[in-house]
Amino acid sequence: MKSNMQSSTSSTVVIDQLENVKWTLSIFAEVLLLLIKSVYFIVESIYHMVVPLPEKSLADDIVLITGTGHGIGKCLAMQFADMCAKVICVDINEQSNAETAKEINVKWKGKAFAYTCDVSKLENVRELGEKIKNEVGTVTVLVNNAGIMPCKSFEAHDEATIRKIFDINVFAHFWMLDTFLPGMKVLNKGHVVFLSSMAGVLGLKNLVPYCGSKFAVRGQWCKLYLYNRQTASCINRNITFVFSVSGLSEAIIDECKDDGYENLHFTVIYPYMVDTGLCKKPKIRFPSLLPLVTPESTAKTIISAVRKNLLELSIPGPLLLINHIFRCFPHKVAMDFKDFLGGGVDAHDD
Amino acid sequence: MKSNMQSSTSSTVVIDQLENVKWTLSIFAEVLLLLIKSVYFIVESIYHMVVPLPEKSLADDIVLITGTGHGIGKCLAMQFADMCAKVICVDINEQSNAETAKEINVKWKGKAFAYTCDVSKLENVRELGEKIKNEVGTVTVLVNNAGIMPCKSFEAHDEATIRKIFDINVFAHFWMLDTFLPGMKVLNKGHVVFLSSMAGVLGLKNLVPYCGSKFAVRGQWCKLYLYNRQTASCINRNITFVFSVSGLSEAIIDECKDDGYENLHFTVIYPYMVDTGLCKKPKIRFPSLLPLVTPESTAKTIISAVRKNLLELSIPGPLLLINHIFRCFPHKVAMDFKDFLGGGVDAHDD
Repeated sequence: MKSNMQSSTSSTVVIDQLENVKWTLSIFAEVLLLLIKSVYFIVESIYHMVVPLPEKSLADDIVLITGTGHGIGKCLAMQFADMCAKVICVDINEQSNAETAKEINVKWKGKAFAYTCDVSKLENVRELGEKIKNEVGTVTVLVNNAGIMPCKSFEAHDEATIRKIFDINVFAHFWMLDTFLPGMKVLNKGHVVFLSSMAGVLGLKNLVPYCGSKFAVRGQWCKLYLYNRQTASCINRNITFVFSVSGLSEAIIDECKDDGYENLHFTVIYPYMVDTGLCKKPKIRFPSLLPLVTPESTAKTIISAVRKNLLELSIPGPLLLINHIFRCFPHKVAMDFKDFLGGGVDAHDD
Repeated sequence: MKSNMQSSTSSTVVIDQLENVKWTLSIFAEVLLLLIKSVYFIVESIYHMVVPLPEKSLADDIVLITGTGHGIGKCLAMQFADMCAKVICVDINEQSNAETAKEINVKWKGKAFAYTCDVSKLENVRELGEKIKNEVGTVTVLVNNAGIMPCKSFEAHDEATIRKIFDINVFAHFWMLDTFLPGMKVLNKGHVVFLSSMAGVLGLKNLVPYCGSKFAVRGQWCKLYLYNRQTASCINRNITFVFSVSGLSEAIIDECKDDGYENLHFTVIYPYMVDTGLCKKPKIRFPSLLPLVTPESTAKTIISAVRKNLLELSIPGPLLLINHIFRCFPHKVAMDFKDFLGGGVDAHDD
């Protein structure tokens, strides 16, 4: 009996050891594959620095853009219409929004639809969603562009201002996503653009709550991307989401990849300083190196990023990579370099 | 007359050219200094990998910690008391908070003070601030630790949950800062700890709004750091702020450095997965490489980071640097590596 037990124990040990070896070998194979794929992805990236990525057509898309009354939103609306897409202009300001839609319809008849909505309120966004579904169709490109940027010291911000910044710059993204994502999933076609900011990548003076809000959007995006990436069950279809902010975005992407939407696309944009009127007192030390960019060129870059299905892009392009590289060095190095470049905003009244 | 004008014009040109040369030389000198300082900071960092930084005393500090009813907050309270600091325990749960304070006072009589407060409401935090000022004194170390983490798909989150996540994980930081920063400024002594999360560094499935909130806190911290760093008028004094979240934090630091608080300190902490009960269904592929950390060891690491005036620290330590390095490579490389490590959380009920 004893020897029987011993032989049974020793055979269990042998089986355990074999399982361990098998597991170690499978991990080794996985690491090897990971390295090979990494080299391939790096070579692919270098190749696309020389040969630009192909740009997809937007002719069949219904594009919803928020904050189309002026600035980047207005330019995006004009340029998406120029790509033959139907454009839904959404703004809280009825008059300026109607003007944008009118300008588009003068050039490209029947391409623009104007809706007045306070996107910071869930019930208003839900109501907007119902109207658009019945009157225009299913939104396939969503550009959440509306945002505010009060520039003053943290202590000068009152509770109402802080809450308003998050209502428009963060919560509106949740409500838009909640309302328009299900329609895209049914069609299995869509692209969401998150408009974050370089203030969603590094912290800046006079922008404490604004930086908080823009970082928040970045996280949301990443999760959605992963959500989209994992399963490959619907390779031939396209879901392209276009939004505008950065924490919120990273997270929502992670979530989407698990649900079988291989062609759901997400783009997060980090503009530096755009001459839209939000940033009234910009501080730029080397204007020839880092000029205030125009809303027109920003919109052009965003649309090109969408057409190429880019995951993230700073404007100007190299800023994001420079930020990532400096984050690998001691913090003091990055901060000294940031002070040298001297970008930021001075406080001003709303 | 004409020749006079010509000579005046040519002398203006000469003066302009001289100014240009002077400017170019000054920029060149600045770049050179930047490079020398960078090399110094890198060498200093490597040196401190071998010789640990000295740890400051916390014996004279009044430490306020939120969320002391259980988990990391409770462990922080016990361990700060062990450092001879006076500890103010703040929690929304009166009973569990009273137990923490009682446990401390049994061991170190008179060291703990318990206050019940919903830190997500500005008026409650202001009231708390008044009481503490009169009954204990000026808070010199602020650890904003309270947080919630509902784990479910984005679509399963309702409006109330999303708003609650931001109320506790983001807005509470604003209200605490607004209430306790002025006192620290008067004393010119303080440290704020922001408790963010690795979910404030990269996006994770089932945590869309949570990731948004934790990214948000990261940005706030950076701005405060810069605010603190720029002027050197009060080198002999100490302001050490301790908070708990990551966009909000980067920004507030940037702001503080401009206002003359050279010794204001800020620490942002990014824990991976801590066994506090918040994270009920963790997914860990390599438990020996990335184990679920205990609240006790997390608190110990946070206090050591505060005593060393570290700017940021992930738990485990190398995670943040690994994240920064991967961000310099194509996104697909980073995502494949993240899938390989396989960390995350499964959805569960609240």
